[in-house]
Amino acid sequence: MKTTTAALQLPYPYLLFLGDTTEPSFAKTAFGLRDWVPERCLGEWACEGATVTTGLPRLTPKEACAKGARGLVIGVANIGGMIGESWIPLLVEALAAGLDLVSGLHAKLNDVPQLKEAAVRTGRRLIDVRVPPASIPIATGRKRSGQRLLTVGTDCALGKKYTALALARAFAERGLPVDFRATGQTGILIAGGGMPMDAVVADFEAGAAEVLSPDAARDHWDVIEGQGSLFHPSYAAVSLGLLHGSQPDVFVVCHDPSRKHMVGHPEFALPSLPETIDLTLQLGRRTNPAMRCAGISLNTSAFDATAARELLARESMQLGLPAADPIRKGPEFQRLVDSCLA
Amino acid sequence: MKTTTAALQLPYPYLLFLGDTTEPSFAKTAFGLRDWVPERCLGEWACEGATVTTGLPRLTPKEACAKGARGLVIGVANIGGMIGESWIPLLVEALAAGLDLVSGLHAKLNDVPQLKEAAVRTGRRLIDVRVPPASIPIATGRKRSGQRLLTVGTDCALGKKYTALALARAFAERGLPVDFRATGQTGILIAGGGMPMDAVVADFEAGAAEVLSPDAARDHWDVIEGQGSLFHPSYAAVSLGLLHGSQPDVFVVCHDPSRKHMVGHPEFALPSLPETIDLTLQLGRRTNPAMRCAGISLNTSAFDATAARELLARESMQLGLPAADPIRKGPEFQRLVDSCLA
Repeated sequence: MKTTTAALQLPYPYLLFLGDTTEPSFAKTAFGLRDWVPERCLGEWACEGATVTTGLPRLTPKEACAKGARGLVIGVANIGGMIGESWIPLLVEALAAGLDLVSGLHAKLNDVPQLKEAAVRTGRRLIDVRVPPASIPIATGRKRSGQRLLTVGTDCALGKKYTALALARAFAERGLPVDFRATGQTGILIAGGGMPMDAVVADFEAGAAEVLSPDAARDHWDVIEGQGSLFHPSYAAVSLGLLHGSQPDVFVVCHDPSRKHMVGHPEFALPSLPETIDLTLQLGRRTNPAMRCAGISLNTSAFDATAARELLARESMQLGLPAADPIRKGPEFQRLVDSCLA
Repeated sequence: MKTTTAALQLPYPYLLFLGDTTEPSFAKTAFGLRDWVPERCLGEWACEGATVTTGLPRLTPKEACAKGARGLVIGVANIGGMIGESWIPLLVEALAAGLDLVSGLHAKLNDVPQLKEAAVRTGRRLIDVRVPPASIPIATGRKRSGQRLLTVGTDCALGKKYTALALARAFAERGLPVDFRATGQTGILIAGGGMPMDAVVADFEAGAAEVLSPDAARDHWDVIEGQGSLFHPSYAAVSLGLLHGSQPDVFVVCHDPSRKHMVGHPEFALPSLPETIDLTLQLGRRTNPAMRCAGISLNTSAFDATAARELLARESMQLGLPAADPIRKGPEFQRLVDSCLA
């Protein structure tokens, strides 16, 4: 599995910074790095009062440096992508200890005067990865060569990136030429490149997705990380532009069966899986009439192994499609991979 | 009818600049200003080879200045919003003649070194209106008070702005409190304020629409200019974010019955009116479950008066909804207004 487009020069191994986070779904960047590039993650650090942990050793920047850390990654993906006021003294401390700072937030490290000043003083780098390239074209809608898979979701932060990464690995294990195409801050940090879809100006959203997965050999797969949800009251624009521009041949719907409403939006119920499949087909077929749903990826982390297996079997039977948890793997996951490649 | 939000200081009367345009739908900014603020438009000017005309007198910048013009407006809305290389010497000539330059393109006048240099030298202003405000929040999805109408379309450039302006005027003529809410460059130039929805970063798209039409009195109407089309392979992200954030109580579908495919995309057929109504309801009811379609606005400029009237009657009967051409007005238009306010 190759990584994507323009390679970033990233200063790992990392100390993962959890800010003042008390909601696990807002720490998904830290979890993603821990799970997919564990060899780059030495420990974690946070403000007083933060309750979320990655399970990695708690290290101060000085301790992390002594163990070989080169960068501190902001492991938080909060609503709006803001740099917390309370984080700044800690980030300055990390620079002083000898760590570069890496962030995928909307807010830029380079826009915070205290950080810029401290970076200059300490000779460290401030690396903002959520910066789209200049001159993204307007989408043309022209059908591109090669195979494409997109993960879509019933909500944010429930497994679209994990599913895409797991499928890309599985395709590679079967000897297929495949690229994981990162579309969000965490995916970009994992892959070392990609397109920060939610930071692109809206008129160019579908065009950015076209740029991310260019023409390729007929048997080549781009496995594209989904963003948000077509049903999300805040982020559906991102999801639709990504869907139209990706022109997926195949999509996999990602869902968390323990979730009853959109994260942070108790007044918005989660859509059902059939609703999500139907709307994705309805909208996606505009740019790829041959698009099909290959199956369901369920995040069963809230269930034990037996309950998870039962749930997967039930959903699979009800929908007539493979249903798997890409973290648990197992025969269900191989069936999902088969279905994607069918 | 009040105008919108932050007022811009605009240097009218204008000379309208048509660039090198040969496709009338790309000159919609010039046409919009001519039709909705004719008192601000003195004449037109263009590169050699341009074939589109507004019908206004052809004036050089020097002649326009002599007649009292204060600004040259770039009247072109081309794909990608670029400033043509061939325009630059003419724009420099306009600055030298004493005109400020006004543009709503994605590309910024202020980013063109020759224009910046000439503006400094001549003491003129470069005014880029397609610049979203700083710090747009992420959409909350919270239902806001007041009444909202959104115009939606089967394609770009077929009457969403004209329809919204005509409906806002009609509401005002009936004594209702109403704001026209501009969402594109031309609307913003007409209203003197608004939100350039297609220039907003995608993650904030629905949030920008929420900002554009804030809480209002219960009987107050925001008539919101639509953008693009949910079916457009390039711009659907903009349309969906605008729909979700606008939370319209009522929408009017705008369509050009003479058009067979999306402008500039012969391989993409225009969606039908029932398809457009259904998809708008399906997606829009996510943030306003009470949303309804009030009727159809047909751009019948390609038909004579009799054919237009027949067409409107036929569409109205087939759909069971009022159908009107807001430019032709007539009893059909009053029925459309009645239906919006029902």
